[in-house]
Amino acid sequence: MTVAEKVTLVEVGPRDGLQYEQGFFPTPRKIELVDLLSQSGLKRIEVTSFVHPKAVPQLADAGEVLRGISKKPGVTYSALVPNLAGCRAALETPVDELALFVSASETHNRKNVNRSVAESLAGLAQVARQAKAAGRRLRGYIITAFGCPYEGRIAKDKLRAILEAYAAMGVDEAALGDTTGMANPRQAAQLAAWLSQGGWPLDLAFHFHDSRGLGLANVLASYEAGIRIFDCSVGGVGGCPTAIGASGNVDTLDMVNLFEEMGVSTGLEFEILRRAAALVAEVLQTRLPSRTFGQGRPRW
Amino acid sequence: MTVAEKVTLVEVGPRDGLQYEQGFFPTPRKIELVDLLSQSGLKRIEVTSFVHPKAVPQLADAGEVLRGISKKPGVTYSALVPNLAGCRAALETPVDELALFVSASETHNRKNVNRSVAESLAGLAQVARQAKAAGRRLRGYIITAFGCPYEGRIAKDKLRAILEAYAAMGVDEAALGDTTGMANPRQAAQLAAWLSQGGWPLDLAFHFHDSRGLGLANVLASYEAGIRIFDCSVGGVGGCPTAIGASGNVDTLDMVNLFEEMGVSTGLEFEILRRAAALVAEVLQTRLPSRTFGQGRPRW
Repeated sequence: MTVAEKVTLVEVGPRDGLQYEQGFFPTPRKIELVDLLSQSGLKRIEVTSFVHPKAVPQLADAGEVLRGISKKPGVTYSALVPNLAGCRAALETPVDELALFVSASETHNRKNVNRSVAESLAGLAQVARQAKAAGRRLRGYIITAFGCPYEGRIAKDKLRAILEAYAAMGVDEAALGDTTGMANPRQAAQLAAWLSQGGWPLDLAFHFHDSRGLGLANVLASYEAGIRIFDCSVGGVGGCPTAIGASGNVDTLDMVNLFEEMGVSTGLEFEILRRAAALVAEVLQTRLPSRTFGQGRPRW
Repeated sequence: MTVAEKVTLVEVGPRDGLQYEQGFFPTPRKIELVDLLSQSGLKRIEVTSFVHPKAVPQLADAGEVLRGISKKPGVTYSALVPNLAGCRAALETPVDELALFVSASETHNRKNVNRSVAESLAGLAQVARQAKAAGRRLRGYIITAFGCPYEGRIAKDKLRAILEAYAAMGVDEAALGDTTGMANPRQAAQLAAWLSQGGWPLDLAFHFHDSRGLGLANVLASYEAGIRIFDCSVGGVGGCPTAIGASGNVDTLDMVNLFEEMGVSTGLEFEILRRAAALVAEVLQTRLPSRTFGQGRPRW
């Protein structure tokens, strides 16, 4: 290697990892978790969600958590926002970034938010305007981007249309999600190569779940094909209970180990991440899906 | 894809997977397992080992198992053989292939068999002569090929020397083993590319363990760099208790899923493999490391 290689990890565990877990994760422990994560060197943390508390009671304390954390300079703290009501609530907190979402699949979008993709995008444009006016960064998820359990593979035209809509509303970064674990490494690499050649005016992130153990292989193939931003969840917890075949996000520790073993710098402190994973395991009283968590100290 | 892609999976679960498990796996269940595996379409099965029963009591029934199975035409049944005594015992059975082994690392080889690499190779040449005279195929493992816990990375000269020695003694296939889980995908891809360009007069297989969840990523990278034969263990059980950081072999089901998802044919019947994994789980009374075993039917 002649040039030092780097990759950016976006920690989504406090939101995507915890949102459907059993039992309420106490607010002070969430705050402790986010603060540990920021101490690990992570520059991007998705802290919580402003979806309706009836839909996701686990994150009903979104405002409290965002106001309770010790914001570290240089870290972008994010919150998922489904609509204008969520946006207004989020903007009352010190959150740095709002994360929007729409499905690439019409059928999945209708089942998820009871709207067409076009209707969703029109609504998100209003959210984006308010967020930008308030000086916040914007992330835009494209969910089911790698395949939909109802519609199968997603045509690139659909992805292009959403990317163009996001770019037009000033979204800073698009995150393509493998919501139900339908990606495979070759398909991911093809999509990564196509996106990398697109000259898009926004950053591009991939968001994999670890369905059937393909998470790291998908990350590897996408990285080698040009993607430099990946979502992960500390300990690997999560997985939408209503999504067919969904597992948790790719574990942060496993992803750090993959990249550091290959000589690609993550800039993260492994032992602090391990403490964050231990906190999650302790509160959820669960065996973490992480493959690296219970192992000895890595060699790198 | 214009040409149909294929990969060969070598099932090593009955040997490498079971050899250090707690409690004796009853001989009739071993026979049932091997017969199920052959019905799945696997063409290569490493059935057992003729190492001394004191070293590996789990496989003390090697001869009984090899005489008890229903040999399916077209399937190559193999047994690990450490020395001439093991070779003689193996040749009294209907085994098709003998598998030899030597470490790429001097230190590891001394700790493993109390000999230098040169001494080991001299002994293996005698074994090879007898096996070839008896018309058996030969596989030669190169263990710690991706790294040694004592010596670190292995120089390619050492691998070349062992490959040349194996070729000279008529070994049909070399299997490079990541004995203690030190491979990473870039290193594996580099080694695969180097080997693929070598014009070696023997087949080349890679044998990964799933340490820190890197197994499938290593397989993917090696396949894309030219390797077409991979070892796997049904359910993902195994892992040498004396090897630092070792996990089980990459699970057969997970590997089949990876390749079939990418459109690479394995020629295997997934549901029969799942039954074989269920048998292992039932006998060992364990939760399998497999990520695919407990999931719904794959899409391919």
